[in-house]
Amino acid sequence: MAEEAEALAAEAEREDAYTLDRKAVAQILYAVDVEDREQLVALMEPLHAADIADLLEQINAFDRMRLIKLYDKEFDGEILSELDEAIREEVIGILTPQVLADAVRELDSDDVVDLLEDLDGPQQEAILEALEAGDRAAVQQSLTYPEYSAGRLMQREVVMAPEYWNVGEMIDFLRNSDNLPEQFYHIVLVDPKLRPVGNVTLGRLMASRREVLLKSIVSETFHTIPVTQYEGDVAYAFNQYHLISAPVVDENDRLVGQITIDDAMAVLDEENAEDILRLAGVDEESSLSDSVVETTKRRFPWLAVNLVTAVLASLVIAQFEDAIATVVALAVLMPIVASMGGNAGTQSLTVAVRALATKDLTTSNIWRVIRREAAVGLINGCAFAVIMGIVGIVWFGSPALGGVIASAMIINLVIAGLAGIMVPVLLEKAGVDPALASGAFVTTVTDVVGFFAFLGLAVMVLL
Amino acid sequence: MAEEAEALAAEAEREDAYTLDRKAVAQILYAVDVEDREQLVALMEPLHAADIADLLEQINAFDRMRLIKLYDKEFDGEILSELDEAIREEVIGILTPQVLADAVRELDSDDVVDLLEDLDGPQQEAILEALEAGDRAAVQQSLTYPEYSAGRLMQREVVMAPEYWNVGEMIDFLRNSDNLPEQFYHIVLVDPKLRPVGNVTLGRLMASRREVLLKSIVSETFHTIPVTQYEGDVAYAFNQYHLISAPVVDENDRLVGQITIDDAMAVLDEENAEDILRLAGVDEESSLSDSVVETTKRRFPWLAVNLVTAVLASLVIAQFEDAIATVVALAVLMPIVASMGGNAGTQSLTVAVRALATKDLTTSNIWRVIRREAAVGLINGCAFAVIMGIVGIVWFGSPALGGVIASAMIINLVIAGLAGIMVPVLLEKAGVDPALASGAFVTTVTDVVGFFAFLGLAVMVLL
Repeated sequence: MAEEAEALAAEAEREDAYTLDRKAVAQILYAVDVEDREQLVALMEPLHAADIADLLEQINAFDRMRLIKLYDKEFDGEILSELDEAIREEVIGILTPQVLADAVRELDSDDVVDLLEDLDGPQQEAILEALEAGDRAAVQQSLTYPEYSAGRLMQREVVMAPEYWNVGEMIDFLRNSDNLPEQFYHIVLVDPKLRPVGNVTLGRLMASRREVLLKSIVSETFHTIPVTQYEGDVAYAFNQYHLISAPVVDENDRLVGQITIDDAMAVLDEENAEDILRLAGVDEESSLSDSVVETTKRRFPWLAVNLVTAVLASLVIAQFEDAIATVVALAVLMPIVASMGGNAGTQSLTVAVRALATKDLTTSNIWRVIRREAAVGLINGCAFAVIMGIVGIVWFGSPALGGVIASAMIINLVIAGLAGIMVPVLLEKAGVDPALASGAFVTTVTDVVGFFAFLGLAVMVLL
Repeated sequence: MAEEAEALAAEAEREDAYTLDRKAVAQILYAVDVEDREQLVALMEPLHAADIADLLEQINAFDRMRLIKLYDKEFDGEILSELDEAIREEVIGILTPQVLADAVRELDSDDVVDLLEDLDGPQQEAILEALEAGDRAAVQQSLTYPEYSAGRLMQREVVMAPEYWNVGEMIDFLRNSDNLPEQFYHIVLVDPKLRPVGNVTLGRLMASRREVLLKSIVSETFHTIPVTQYEGDVAYAFNQYHLISAPVVDENDRLVGQITIDDAMAVLDEENAEDILRLAGVDEESSLSDSVVETTKRRFPWLAVNLVTAVLASLVIAQFEDAIATVVALAVLMPIVASMGGNAGTQSLTVAVRALATKDLTTSNIWRVIRREAAVGLINGCAFAVIMGIVGIVWFGSPALGGVIASAMIINLVIAGLAGIMVPVLLEKAGVDPALASGAFVTTVTDVVGFFAFLGLAVMVLL
C-alpha cells in the first residue's frame, strides 16, 4: 500500500512538475486529523506560500478550517495574498484577529491593497486597523485610484536619483542607505520636478566606472506608466517591451511609484484566463473553489442567452414545418449545416478576439483580414460542400438534396467567417468586451443562416 | 481631411494605449511610396523593435518588401526576434546577406536559438555562418536540448560566485569585471561542484555591509530549473513563485545557464494563447499574418472532426424519422436540447482545461469537482426544464411535449457537466492535450445524448 502510494507519487512528480504531491497532501491531512501541530508545521515548512494557498483551495472546507486553526500563528500573510478570492473571505473569517493582524503587517502595501479590494466592509476595517499608521495611509491612498488601474498595482517604494549624478555618487548613496526596498532592479533618474527621465539597471551600475554619468548608461527601452492606465494595458506594455520594472507617473508626469514585472505577469495571466472563460460563456471570476450555488449562478446567464438563440433558430425551422413533413430527410440533415457554421464562426471569432487582445488587429489590416476570412470560408465551404453533397446523394439517393446541402454549406461557412471577424470588431468599437458577447451573436447568425439557407433552398429545389 | 485624420488618431490613442497609431503608419507608408529613406528612418527611429515587428505584420506583403528594402541596413536583429513566425521567413528572404549577418550578430544567443528553430535548412545555415565562432558554438549547443525545453529558453551568461564570499569581495569582483552581461538581477551562489545553492539580488547586495557573508543574504525563494524541463512548466514556476530569474541546472545539478522572467512571461502568454485557440479548434500557431491557404489548412481538420460529430448526431435523428414525420414539432424543438447541452458542456470543459493548465485540478479535489459539475448541471437543467416546458406548452399547446423537452433538458445538462469535466481529465491522463481534443468529444456526447433523449422520450410519451 505504502509502496504503491510512493510509486504513484513518483509518477505524479515526473509527469506534472509543480503539481502538489498527493503523498504530501495526505501526510498534512493526517497531521490535521491527529492534531499533531509540530508535525503539521514541519510538513508545511518547505512549501512556498503559493503552494500552501493551492493546498487550501484543493481540500474541503472542513479540513481547511481544522488545518488553519492548528497551523495558527504560523499562518503567513503571503498565503492570504496567493489565495483565490472565492475562499479568501472564508479563511480570513477563520483566523484569529491577532494572527490576521500579524499576517497582514508582513505584506507589501500593494499586496494589502489587492487583499482589501475584494473584502466586505467589516473585514476591510479589521485589516486596516491591523496596519501601522504609515502603511494604513499608503494603502488608503492607493485605494483612491480606480480599480484595475496601474495605481492599484504599483508599489510606492522606488529608488530614485537626480539625473546629474554619476555612478560613484549613486553607489555611495546606495551603500549608505538604511531603508532600501526588499526588491529593486532599477534606479529611476528624475528631473528637478520629479519627472522620471530614465532607468539605470543595477547590473549596469555595477559594471560602470565611478565617474560615468548615470544618464549615459540608461536602459535603451524606457517606459513610464500613467497611474490611471488599465492594468491589462500595463501587462501588455511589459510583455511587448520586455520591461522588468517601470516608473508610474501622475497626470503631471511626476513619479508616484513603480510596477515590477512579476505583478504584470500575474495580470497578463489573469487577462488571458478571463478571455478563455468568457469565450466559453463562463463568468471570468469562476474558479474551482466556487460553491455549487455560485457556479450555477455564474453559468446560468450564458445558457439563458443561448436558449434565446436556440429558440430563434427553432422559429426559423418552424417556418418550414410543411417541407419537413414532406421530406423528413431535411430534419435529419439540417443540424449539420448549422453545426458546421457554428464551429467555423467560433474559429474565426476566437482568432479575432485574440488578435484584438494582442493589438494585432487594427485599422491597417482589418480589411485584409475580412477578405481573408471570406476566402477561407469559401474554400472550406466548397470542400465540405463536395463531401456533404456526396453524403447526401449516397445516404438519401437524391442528387437534388445533395446539391441543396452543398450550397447551404458554402453560404453558411462564408457568413460564419464574416460574422466571426466583424462581430468582435464591432463590439470592441462599441466598447463591449468582444470575448464576452461575440459567441452569442455569431452563433445566432450561423444558426439562423444555416437553417434558413438549407430549408429555404430545399423548398425551392425539392418541392 | 488632415484634421479629421488627426482627430481619429487622437481618439485611437486615447482608447487603445499601445495600438500603433494609424497616422504614423500612414506616414511611414507614404515615405515608402515616395522612396524617402531619410524620412522613413526618422519616422521609425522612435519605435521599439516590437512595434516595428507589429507594423510589418499589419501591412501587406508588397509594402513590407518595399519598406524593408528601403530601410536596409537600419534593420535591427531585435525586429526579427519579435516578428511572427508566419512572416519571419519571408522577411529573412528579403534582407541582403550583409544586413542579415549584422542583424543576427547583435542578438543574444537565446534569441538566435529562438530564431533558428523555425527556419528551414538553408536559412538556418545562412544565419549560423553569420555568427562568430564562439556564438555559433553556443547556439549549436543550445539546439541540442529538446524543443520547448528550458535549455532552449535559457541564456548562458550567468554571474556566479563561490558561496563563501562576502559582500565586499563580490562588489569588488563586479566592479573589476570587464564583461558582465547586459542585464542581470541576481548573483548565483555555487558550491565547489558548481551546483547553485542560492540567489542574491543586486539590491540586497548594495544594501549590505562589506563583511556580511553572501550566503546570509540569499533570497527566501530559490528555485532551480532542470535544463530539460518543459517551457510551460518553467513559466508556471515563475508565475507561481514570483521569480525574477532562476538558474538552470543539468542532470548533475550543475549550473548551465539562467532564465529571466521576461522570457518566462512570453512563454506563459503563448501557452495561454495556444489554449484559447485550441479550445476553438484552431491550430495553435494560427496568426493574422497567415495566408488564405495556410489559414484554410489550419481550420480544415477541426471542421472535418466536427462534420463527423454532426453526422453521428444525424444518424441518431435518422432513427426517429417516423416520429418526426408524425409530429413535426419534434424537428422544430430538437436542436434546442442539443444546443443547450453543447454550451453547458463547453462551459464545464473550459473551466476544467483552465484548471488543469494552472494545476488547480488534482487528485485531491477531482471527485469534489465532478460532484459539483453534476449538481450544477442538475440545477441549471431543472431551471431550463421549467422554462422550456412552458415554452413547449404555450407554443405547441402540448403538455406532453413540454414534459418531454423538460426531461431531455435535465438529462442533457447533467451529462454535459459530467462529460465537460471527465473528458479533459481523462485526455490529460492519456497524455493528450485536453485543450486540443476535449471539444470534439464533449460535443459528440451532448449532441448524441441531446437528440436521443429528446426523440426517444417523445416516442415513448407521444406516440
